[in-house]
Amino acid sequence: MIKILLDCFGGDHSPEAHVEGALAALQAKSDLHLLLTGDEQILKAALQGHSYDASRLEIIHAPEIITGEDKPTDAIRLKRNSSMMKAIMMLRDEDDIAGMVSTGSTGALVTGALVRLGRIPGIIRPAFCPLLPTMNGGIVGVCDSGANVEVTSAHLRQFAIMASLYMEQVYGVSKPRVALLNVGKESEKGDDIRKEAYKMLSDTPEINFVGNMESRDLLSGTYDVVVCDGFSGNVLIKATEGTAVELLKKLKTDIYSKWTYKLGGLLMKSMFAKEKAMLDYQNHGGSVLLGTGKVVVKGHGSSKARAVAKCIEQAWRMEEGGLPARIEETVSRYEHFEE
Amino acid sequence: MIKILLDCFGGDHSPEAHVEGALAALQAKSDLHLLLTGDEQILKAALQGHSYDASRLEIIHAPEIITGEDKPTDAIRLKRNSSMMKAIMMLRDEDDIAGMVSTGSTGALVTGALVRLGRIPGIIRPAFCPLLPTMNGGIVGVCDSGANVEVTSAHLRQFAIMASLYMEQVYGVSKPRVALLNVGKESEKGDDIRKEAYKMLSDTPEINFVGNMESRDLLSGTYDVVVCDGFSGNVLIKATEGTAVELLKKLKTDIYSKWTYKLGGLLMKSMFAKEKAMLDYQNHGGSVLLGTGKVVVKGHGSSKARAVAKCIEQAWRMEEGGLPARIEETVSRYEHFEE
Repeated sequence: MIKILLDCFGGDHSPEAHVEGALAALQAKSDLHLLLTGDEQILKAALQGHSYDASRLEIIHAPEIITGEDKPTDAIRLKRNSSMMKAIMMLRDEDDIAGMVSTGSTGALVTGALVRLGRIPGIIRPAFCPLLPTMNGGIVGVCDSGANVEVTSAHLRQFAIMASLYMEQVYGVSKPRVALLNVGKESEKGDDIRKEAYKMLSDTPEINFVGNMESRDLLSGTYDVVVCDGFSGNVLIKATEGTAVELLKKLKTDIYSKWTYKLGGLLMKSMFAKEKAMLDYQNHGGSVLLGTGKVVVKGHGSSKARAVAKCIEQAWRMEEGGLPARIEETVSRYEHFEE
Repeated sequence: MIKILLDCFGGDHSPEAHVEGALAALQAKSDLHLLLTGDEQILKAALQGHSYDASRLEIIHAPEIITGEDKPTDAIRLKRNSSMMKAIMMLRDEDDIAGMVSTGSTGALVTGALVRLGRIPGIIRPAFCPLLPTMNGGIVGVCDSGANVEVTSAHLRQFAIMASLYMEQVYGVSKPRVALLNVGKESEKGDDIRKEAYKMLSDTPEINFVGNMESRDLLSGTYDVVVCDGFSGNVLIKATEGTAVELLKKLKTDIYSKWTYKLGGLLMKSMFAKEKAMLDYQNHGGSVLLGTGKVVVKGHGSSKARAVAKCIEQAWRMEEGGLPARIEETVSRYEHFEE
């Protein structure tokens, strides 16, 4: 049985989407056991009328909610009875629980997980790895994208190993193509950290390093994993998502400005719908923290039931394939210096 | 008379676009004097048949061409007879020449200008500042976006001052809204450099600092200047441009996949054309190097005549309003440590 905690609050569609997603996941995986954290009364009410295998679903009462307004460091200290912190603490304390899923505050989740869950032995710094849909219908992982604003080349090598194993195991990508985010493709580009990382990545047979990548090529479908410091990774994913959102918003506004455009838009409705679906994160699951002692999946705040179920499945896959152990084994082949 | 050098080679439409652009600029500005660098024979041939004020146009013979294949450091050392290096050296040596425009290799131009042209007194590091069109029809400058992969907070303050004065003078933006690129909006976000820069920028009355900006908001039209290190600035602009290009390419491919879409596309043709024009860099001029001893404008490699003329006008405006002197005066109010 694989036990996973689900933080049912702090998302836009809490807790209905979470309860529904949980039930769908239970149905899909017969060896899955879920622990739902949140206000017991509300969760019980949401479960009413549904039929499910009650022996594989528990409710853990945790009435407080961490919101986007809470400062992460305060939230993890002061809101111990919140659905998120309760999950993090149980994950830390109970050996037989494999991981957790949350759609709450990213800052609180990352901070809480980093502070409370420890690291996989040998990992210097856990990293945050979201996925973006590419233009040819695939996905690309960006690691790190926010957990570490400053990094060394040794960190970057560990990010590459972790994300590569992750893409392989959870998404079945064979020999994931790993690129280093840089200001140009040539090996001598960037600062000293990048130049050193380029050499180290070239010298890591466990990964399929394909060289430097410029940010403009993120969506091209040429790469499976992009390795970067958390600052530029954050700039990269937000610029990419932001531009896509702004452009589509602009298109929509313009379409409504004239009746011929509206008619044209109508004719292209199914095309736009397909494109929107391609760009929809709900199809791909959440972002993961790689390198923490236990598996942590962060779903989008606006996740609906389907996205929640995907996130649970993601956590299940990570544990089922023994990802933490594989990461530990692989990084142990390299000497790393703790800071 | 304002004297400006125009490197007529190394662009996709060299030298025809440059010659045409030069003649248009001469017509628009009666106090403009242009020096065209490149192969004399070819330039003379391109000028044939045009009528223009020959007293304000000179040709400087420089038969070599720097291409994208040339390594910048080698190019500036070995190709002294290239149209670009000739322009840089004349700009350095002749006091009465105010600036130069090139559409050639960005790497060679930035490297050459930084090495040969010196800096405005007080400026620690010149910075590269491209413009991006925003969704509401405006523009935003991103400074630095590649000249300095590593920076200090003092550099960031200088970038802010330079870019702010530039937007005000060349584009008539009153009190340009200056933002600091960061991983979140809150003042305590980012690494130590960002935290310190946030304080310093808040403490610089010469600029209108409006706080941190996340990369997703670049095109929102809320900011006039974004200040950043050259690494994340490069990631920012290439991710933004790249996503826009990839999305529009995808739209176009999809439109051709079905006849109803094609019909829809036809109805929306003028809308797409307007959007394309809005995103077209040719309307806004080139990127500028801020802080070098003389004015340097880098036009897009694919610039046509109109874009070349815009770049010349940009250089003319910078000089005409005394931008270098204003930058020198403003930064002199702050103590900076040379490295």
